[in-house]
Amino acid sequence: MPPATVDSTFQKVTEGVRNPYGPNPHDFMSNVSRFKLIESTLREGEQFANAFFDTEKKIEIAKALDEFGVDYIELTSPAASEQSRLDCEAICKLGLKAKILTHIRCHMDDARIAVATGVDGVDVVIGTSQFLREYSHGKDMNYIAKSAIEVIEFVKSHGIEIRFSSEDSFRSDLVDLLNIYRTVDKIGVNRVGIADTVGCANPRQVYDLVRTLKSIVSCEIECHFHNDTGCAIANAYTALEAGATFIDVSVLGIGERNGITSLGGLMARMIAADRDYVLSKYKLHKLRDLENLVADAVQINIPFNNPITGFCAFTHKAGIHAKAILANPSTYEILDPADFGLTRYIHFANRLTGWNAIKSRVDQLNLALTDAQCKEVTTKIKALGDIRPLNIDDVDSIIREYHADQNNEIAAAIQA
Amino acid sequence: MPPATVDSTFQKVTEGVRNPYGPNPHDFMSNVSRFKLIESTLREGEQFANAFFDTEKKIEIAKALDEFGVDYIELTSPAASEQSRLDCEAICKLGLKAKILTHIRCHMDDARIAVATGVDGVDVVIGTSQFLREYSHGKDMNYIAKSAIEVIEFVKSHGIEIRFSSEDSFRSDLVDLLNIYRTVDKIGVNRVGIADTVGCANPRQVYDLVRTLKSIVSCEIECHFHNDTGCAIANAYTALEAGATFIDVSVLGIGERNGITSLGGLMARMIAADRDYVLSKYKLHKLRDLENLVADAVQINIPFNNPITGFCAFTHKAGIHAKAILANPSTYEILDPADFGLTRYIHFANRLTGWNAIKSRVDQLNLALTDAQCKEVTTKIKALGDIRPLNIDDVDSIIREYHADQNNEIAAAIQA
Repeated sequence: MPPATVDSTFQKVTEGVRNPYGPNPHDFMSNVSRFKLIESTLREGEQFANAFFDTEKKIEIAKALDEFGVDYIELTSPAASEQSRLDCEAICKLGLKAKILTHIRCHMDDARIAVATGVDGVDVVIGTSQFLREYSHGKDMNYIAKSAIEVIEFVKSHGIEIRFSSEDSFRSDLVDLLNIYRTVDKIGVNRVGIADTVGCANPRQVYDLVRTLKSIVSCEIECHFHNDTGCAIANAYTALEAGATFIDVSVLGIGERNGITSLGGLMARMIAADRDYVLSKYKLHKLRDLENLVADAVQINIPFNNPITGFCAFTHKAGIHAKAILANPSTYEILDPADFGLTRYIHFANRLTGWNAIKSRVDQLNLALTDAQCKEVTTKIKALGDIRPLNIDDVDSIIREYHADQNNEIAAAIQA
Repeated sequence: MPPATVDSTFQKVTEGVRNPYGPNPHDFMSNVSRFKLIESTLREGEQFANAFFDTEKKIEIAKALDEFGVDYIELTSPAASEQSRLDCEAICKLGLKAKILTHIRCHMDDARIAVATGVDGVDVVIGTSQFLREYSHGKDMNYIAKSAIEVIEFVKSHGIEIRFSSEDSFRSDLVDLLNIYRTVDKIGVNRVGIADTVGCANPRQVYDLVRTLKSIVSCEIECHFHNDTGCAIANAYTALEAGATFIDVSVLGIGERNGITSLGGLMARMIAADRDYVLSKYKLHKLRDLENLVADAVQINIPFNNPITGFCAFTHKAGIHAKAILANPSTYEILDPADFGLTRYIHFANRLTGWNAIKSRVDQLNLALTDAQCKEVTTKIKALGDIRPLNIDDVDSIIREYHADQNNEIAAAIQA
């Protein structure tokens, strides 16, 4: 048997013995390959500055989320307003595959209204940081524990799921946090939640807190990350590595301030980690329509740099990128646009273009030019690209003119 | 001495004995508090689908970046086109405080053109992954090492800085990578670069690779992260924790596909970690104008969810958020908008509003209502907010009408 070369070993790894971007085999608690989504466009998303969803729009969004395949749909507290309560009841009656949750303050008044709506579960939250204890509800940890026990036992007595979450978890005292989580775990809460309410956490803090929490509770862990410092997607992935199972997302990440982990962004991250799992659960072809539905409803544009559906997410421009993409798309793509019902685009009409990209265009135009000729016409295209922005028509004109000149020269040579 | 309570201990931590979102004291190699920016809007950014910068616009952007305080400005290879070369020379002659770099393929032809432009340094890159070696340049690791040594020694002989980077580092064979990095470190390269060219890396992979690399080279480490899976900002932060010093950024993150770590996003992340360092180096009040300059030049909108400058990054909506923000902004803000010359906004015209937010508005309108009255008028506002989107005029009308009614009732009572 010939000795394995470095190359063949690498090839073997990339061919799927193990996906190097998948779960880290040293993370014994990792749930990267069995995560679940709690979709909060109709709760956190309603806290987005521009959001106003009437009943019809809420139902349309809930149905679209259900078709996409989200595991849970979280709704605004029925205690927020009378219409919020009626809408919650209406969505519970739709008979969706996704379980319906509502999100309430840790208070019996809210809990009574919530269980009466017909939801499958209640997400309870209370601020545990020094900041929130002082400036929001003004209660101490003993009061928080007492309220939590009362609310949890009440909700459980109605036979529905219950989650208890701290708020602003990363600015809460660790011992306080672990105490309250262990208490609610012992009385049988279904999930405990960690919330980076202000968006301050970085991935290694997330890993440490989730892993520590995992070691002291037997229930599952849910995480909620705001994006103020741009880490909401990475933090969600890291939380799964550390043993969390549930991630809160919203379409385009809409929520308070600049929002939370986006559904599409997390799909991009997770499909790189476990493509089979993601494709088996979620209808990724519906992502673009879902994002357009919500973007229209809250009057925003899809960000130019949105993962997957940003207008240029699969556009390749620089010459060396275009050359390699034409030979094998995996060279510069970790995501396959076809998984999302999208296509890639080679941007060849600019001064950074290379002759491989132009040769590909020449072939598309069904013109016959040698490699040397393609290089020559590329020089002309780059020269014009130095002067002004080019469009495809510009490039095609230069190619066609060059091609005609070549043929004229040949004709002239024959005639001579 | 009385025993310290949990609360007073926590207070002590939050009051600045140590910033809990700052460098992790266990990261002995962390450069979170001495990082530097390599600003690549005029290189990576030129690879953005919409980008065409003429000479005048390049100079305007270079000057704005310099005023902001970036450490290095990276320019498109002078080998890309004749105008690229002329622009590179022109920017070198501006006499900016920032050092000027250009970014070239690992090839002597490109290196000769680059050193002749007057740049302060050259960034050399070559694909090291199996994908790129097979489908891009077609060279093996021996060839790569040989070319790298030739180019590095040539650039060094001209007395300017030289960086050597692999491309697609996270899909390259680790042993190949460490071999080439150690080789170039030994011959005196200034920086070695890690590039997540396809945007596949997650934070823990970044931490592992940077830390491993740090243990085998004596030069500094630069990192470049694409954002295909939404982790570019988090990966940059994690790289600094692991011992990298230089992060590649561009304004709004513009670059190939959906781009790289954004300048503004990294500022948000870093100011949470070390506010004093960031404020001492970078003119954050200029961030919004800088982003608008580049957004106009490439005809894009600032994403609604952009860190710091997104239109709602400092807008607080839900009742419990608004209440606490009014009492102490730190409750729901990890960033202070004043650091960026911006202001916060309490969104009170919606059905999720609370009576504290409305009371604040009543005070702004200079009307006298008791807390009980504020709660009553809040109920009226939420009822209208259930029916349709509200604007500030709607809320003010309801408040003024309610206030007038109260006064009329008092007048009637006096009269009766």
